[in-house]
Amino acid sequence: MKVAVVGAGSIGLLYAIRTQEAGHEVTLFVRREQQIELICNKGIQVEGESMMYDIHVKNIMDISGAFDLIIIATKQTHVKKIVELVKVNEIVAPLLFLQNGMGHIEDIHEIINPTAIGIIEHGARKLSDRTVAHTGVGVTRIAAVTMKQEDLIIYKQMLESSHFPYKLENDWFEVMSDKLIINAVINPLTSIFKVVNGEVVNNPNLFRIAKKLCEEACDALGKASVEYHLDRVKKVAMQTKDNHSSMLEDIKNGRRTEIEGISGYLLKRANDELPYTTFVYEGVQAMQQMDRREYE
Amino acid sequence: MKVAVVGAGSIGLLYAIRTQEAGHEVTLFVRREQQIELICNKGIQVEGESMMYDIHVKNIMDISGAFDLIIIATKQTHVKKIVELVKVNEIVAPLLFLQNGMGHIEDIHEIINPTAIGIIEHGARKLSDRTVAHTGVGVTRIAAVTMKQEDLIIYKQMLESSHFPYKLENDWFEVMSDKLIINAVINPLTSIFKVVNGEVVNNPNLFRIAKKLCEEACDALGKASVEYHLDRVKKVAMQTKDNHSSMLEDIKNGRRTEIEGISGYLLKRANDELPYTTFVYEGVQAMQQMDRREYE
Repeated sequence: MKVAVVGAGSIGLLYAIRTQEAGHEVTLFVRREQQIELICNKGIQVEGESMMYDIHVKNIMDISGAFDLIIIATKQTHVKKIVELVKVNEIVAPLLFLQNGMGHIEDIHEIINPTAIGIIEHGARKLSDRTVAHTGVGVTRIAAVTMKQEDLIIYKQMLESSHFPYKLENDWFEVMSDKLIINAVINPLTSIFKVVNGEVVNNPNLFRIAKKLCEEACDALGKASVEYHLDRVKKVAMQTKDNHSSMLEDIKNGRRTEIEGISGYLLKRANDELPYTTFVYEGVQAMQQMDRREYE
Repeated sequence: MKVAVVGAGSIGLLYAIRTQEAGHEVTLFVRREQQIELICNKGIQVEGESMMYDIHVKNIMDISGAFDLIIIATKQTHVKKIVELVKVNEIVAPLLFLQNGMGHIEDIHEIINPTAIGIIEHGARKLSDRTVAHTGVGVTRIAAVTMKQEDLIIYKQMLESSHFPYKLENDWFEVMSDKLIINAVINPLTSIFKVVNGEVVNNPNLFRIAKKLCEEACDALGKASVEYHLDRVKKVAMQTKDNHSSMLEDIKNGRRTEIEGISGYLLKRANDELPYTTFVYEGVQAMQQMDRREYE
């Protein structure tokens, strides 16, 4: 297949490599000319693996052409813009969205292309503009949004390999919202208190807040079993106990976070007030705007 | 009068000096032998003022003797211990308590001595074991708890001077709880987000949390006018906009904070759930316990 991968952060680089590895012709679309030049000259690579991948790389503004599949691997905050580009350029290829959170779901519903979502359970960290560390091998759970289920089955078979598996899910809302709960607890809490993920479970005071956040997320998403979801939060926090969450990394690096699509999404959906979620939502927004010089 | 001042932090040093200045014989009671020796040798001083004060200084464990008044200027977390010492040593002198928060009120009610409380509106910062900066001249609002009002009037007249005024209040609960609201908003919020006091008002996201904390504090204390108290919070935050709150200073220096007597007091008194107050209570407790090495 001809596959486009949009975005060249850790996820974009990893999926571009693993997709080309599976035998497809990949074009990587990025924003910065500097990164285009670097990848043109040196290719991209997984840290610790000898193979170097020559990959077509183009500026995202020049996206066009006939692709069999477009994998959107940008941050959620850029999805709106990508969707506009797809519309403007009359691209009709099916789209697979790999974002955290659920803030982009509305944007997805605005386009006529067949769409699917993927939830990534891999660990990946970008080391440079052309290198990614594949820190944990997991699975990509995919589910159709507006795409036909039988088409998604074909894509699954074509994309996956033994060391990069995909798993079909039947209900996109179920799988995305299950993941959202975990993100809505771990990400803002670790960002505000500037701690590694394990502290969410290991510090009894933080765990009490985590429990409240989990209850509120379940409430907003209509999930009955808080126990089950709290168990999943614990498991993920302990599996990644020494890691910084992506949101904490964003805060540390002065980047915009995905708070809007995570806690913000819950607040929009909720019928009741969600005070703990409101606190972390406002708190992370505050941190994004704050002058870091104020306190060091 | 013979006046004992217990505690030699910023407040203890300032009140020892200003009380001696008003013509009284002051004995300062402290915990550390090192500080006793230093003050014995060099006296105490207000930064920027030439006058050096020779002051009697003794170990708090040796507290005894006939005083006309004992001013308790320790942190709230030490009041219980002081009250025990007073009981054990059968000291009958009237006591004036200068703590933030309301966690010590129960302890005060356990003793037979006549008691009063003082709310400090001065700015003071300890520079060394024998030097204090008087950063803002304000007023000391005093109110009788179990002391007779006419006795308190006499103490007021004797303690005050033109540049160190005292103001009589009629209702100790009113004046303490008004101050508690301000502390319950500014202290934990600035500690969790590690910002100067002004950010509580200037950052719109933090201000929305501040408003919720103020509403909850008013609710717990049975105060009808949230507007009035929110205005006071704003005023104090702006008057001290470049300062770190005492709680943030405690967190930065790895010391125990007064969260228990501030947010903890509200949680104990409340009939309803106070989610925002619970969040900051658990959050500050978490920060107190956290290994700072986890994230730097």
